[in-house]
Amino acid sequence: MNRNFVDLIIKKRDKNELSTDEINFFVEQASDENFPDYQISSMLMAMYLNGLSYRETSDLTMAMANSGKVLNLSEIEGIKVDKHSTGGVSDTTTLILAPLTASCGLSVVKMSGRGLGHTGGTIDKLKSIEGFNTEISDLQAMTLVKNNGIVIMGQTENLAPADKRFYAVRDVTGTVESIPLIASSIMSKKIAAGCDALVLDVKCGNGAFMKDFESAEKLADTMVEIGKNVNKRVIALITDMNQPLGNSIGNSFEVIEAMEVLKGNLNGRLKEVSLELGSRMLILGNICKTKNEAVNMLEENIKNGKGIEKFRKIIASQNGNPNVVDDYSLFPMAKCKKVVKAQMSGYINSINTYGVGKASLETGAGRRKKTDLIDYGAGIILRCSLGDRISEGEILAEVYAKTDEMCDNASEILKDSIFIDNKPSVKIKSIIKVIGE
Amino acid sequence: MNRNFVDLIIKKRDKNELSTDEINFFVEQASDENFPDYQISSMLMAMYLNGLSYRETSDLTMAMANSGKVLNLSEIEGIKVDKHSTGGVSDTTTLILAPLTASCGLSVVKMSGRGLGHTGGTIDKLKSIEGFNTEISDLQAMTLVKNNGIVIMGQTENLAPADKRFYAVRDVTGTVESIPLIASSIMSKKIAAGCDALVLDVKCGNGAFMKDFESAEKLADTMVEIGKNVNKRVIALITDMNQPLGNSIGNSFEVIEAMEVLKGNLNGRLKEVSLELGSRMLILGNICKTKNEAVNMLEENIKNGKGIEKFRKIIASQNGNPNVVDDYSLFPMAKCKKVVKAQMSGYINSINTYGVGKASLETGAGRRKKTDLIDYGAGIILRCSLGDRISEGEILAEVYAKTDEMCDNASEILKDSIFIDNKPSVKIKSIIKVIGE
Repeated sequence: MNRNFVDLIIKKRDKNELSTDEINFFVEQASDENFPDYQISSMLMAMYLNGLSYRETSDLTMAMANSGKVLNLSEIEGIKVDKHSTGGVSDTTTLILAPLTASCGLSVVKMSGRGLGHTGGTIDKLKSIEGFNTEISDLQAMTLVKNNGIVIMGQTENLAPADKRFYAVRDVTGTVESIPLIASSIMSKKIAAGCDALVLDVKCGNGAFMKDFESAEKLADTMVEIGKNVNKRVIALITDMNQPLGNSIGNSFEVIEAMEVLKGNLNGRLKEVSLELGSRMLILGNICKTKNEAVNMLEENIKNGKGIEKFRKIIASQNGNPNVVDDYSLFPMAKCKKVVKAQMSGYINSINTYGVGKASLETGAGRRKKTDLIDYGAGIILRCSLGDRISEGEILAEVYAKTDEMCDNASEILKDSIFIDNKPSVKIKSIIKVIGE
Repeated sequence: MNRNFVDLIIKKRDKNELSTDEINFFVEQASDENFPDYQISSMLMAMYLNGLSYRETSDLTMAMANSGKVLNLSEIEGIKVDKHSTGGVSDTTTLILAPLTASCGLSVVKMSGRGLGHTGGTIDKLKSIEGFNTEISDLQAMTLVKNNGIVIMGQTENLAPADKRFYAVRDVTGTVESIPLIASSIMSKKIAAGCDALVLDVKCGNGAFMKDFESAEKLADTMVEIGKNVNKRVIALITDMNQPLGNSIGNSFEVIEAMEVLKGNLNGRLKEVSLELGSRMLILGNICKTKNEAVNMLEENIKNGKGIEKFRKIIASQNGNPNVVDDYSLFPMAKCKKVVKAQMSGYINSINTYGVGKASLETGAGRRKKTDLIDYGAGIILRCSLGDRISEGEILAEVYAKTDEMCDNASEILKDSIFIDNKPSVKIKSIIKVIGE
């Protein structure tokens, strides 16, 4: 209990703007584990309902970033550009982008998270490669970047601990879905991870956290504004998540799909979004001047194999088995399989992407709660996209899991998540908007 | 942590009305001491900011009343009418009303509270009478009412425990000043205390919890509406608290002032408000039909001494020394005294009533926190009212305390709380509005 803190809650409750000092005080107090959760939750609900100005949101971001250790990447030459996705289904862009931009000369220190709920995480995906180590110390990270230009690692200990505490409270007090709180949470972790510039992929649609364009745009705007306030160049793309981005869902499957894109064997939405994001990273990193130049360089490094070679080097330098690049049979593979077939002819009219993510959870490919174990060889291969013309009995998806029962459960959900109609769906662009250019 | 409870918070956060079952679930959960405060505080902030309908407020009231023991007064004949004041300075109406209405034949079971902050409490005032016992069991209360028609007692254990918990959380999370939460808190305790009907004195002004008429009216309206929803007849008076109601502030002093009104020795605002409240009690209790009849009966029982005799009987039957009625020197009396004099001639233009209450705290007459001890013989006698014409050097107030230093501190605050100007203040009526008649 802290009397001054009550005054602060009342100030926000009464729709007043908190000063920088007051936001710092809030975060400092919350960094003390003896400080009561009930005052934090009360403040967070007041912030949820009365909002935060861009200035307050930026102050909150910096206070949370500074609540723990901020990575110092100044030893690494050049502009350090990070990338963040708000999360979707079959969103494997990081595994394409990180090696591909590194192969173009960008220094990449990529800190990634684990999957939870219907969305996967880059760290889990990499763990499907035998031996791959993502628990990298700051010092090891520096060495890896100096030698290889890139490291992909799990979040370090003590990264924005205030954000961790706020999120734990928000999760159980109905204050998760707040744009300024989401924006400051994302940005605080990215800033603590030491980046100079940031490309954001804000997913929008039925498989994304932001279901509608307006809230996705507001979230993107907010993060770009935070960037301006804290002197980090930030570009945000709003991209479509009304269907899985690629065709593969599940850890091994997604790594393989990323490798296929890097090898030049696969075109489509996943590649398109990856090149859009990657080109902005090259521009922010001063590697290229124009988008055209950047896209050409990325395409070139797919064609000449530099991208996939960089991925091979990442694997080797982080103790993984680099042979997986050439031999996908080295990846774990679930032994049971089931196919989902179209029950009528027509067009793929809509896909409940959240449902597809839930089906993937049923295969064992994801986590319901943080402590769940993952089956790296389980998942789904989608064989259709929005707008495809389909005949009755045609295969819509393949489901892989440890047991037939799991395959059945996942198939049932999947069947209910793919809607066929006699007219095609309205076409949605993969890249909906770019903010902050 | 309770997932269903998070859904409930989200429902209120999103401005939806909670069902009766949902309000009951909220109160049930909060009655479990293992249920986390952080979820309660989050819900209370959502309720504070998004409000509660009259229906929700009534449901909350009943759920809190039923969270503990509800007094069963059915053995006592007649309609049991309770009275409640939202708290002010020199508000001694209960000590006048309770014996006076009992002397008119009303059965009075008066459960009162202790003072906190700038307002006093009836239980503290009575404790200034040597031996007076307010810790009365339910069974003793029944016997006292049967024998004497009246009992004045402290709150019983386990009275609306959910309200106690909510208030403790609200106090430290910035959610005290919410009209539906205040209204349901007051009403839940009154309903748990077993009344059939209720007269409310909603104070309004600079010494009251509700500073402006609009919020006082809203609080009064809300409590009258709760009464309608839960089948209790409720009348609310909005009365002025832009100056202390009587001239005495401090426990002994206020008991003496109440006795002076009951003896017919004192007229003025305190008597006026007491008769207004008392007449409504007699009407709600079916003792009188009209306000005129009721006021006449109360005036008559002042003249014929029945009111003060009833007070003497209350004291005697609750182990107090009844001789105090005739010999005020039996009351505790602080030994140091200081007078506050007018520093210029003119009119009493305004009184910071909250300041007067704070000055009284400095004398030792009140409590800053619940565990503070009280000096029953300390306090203030005001010698002026709003609009009085005053000459420089005239005595405005007398201050009584244990030490000269305490007298000095109280006098300083008092001096700054009484404003003299060359024009009189706008006259404010003591009774501003009556709601629910």
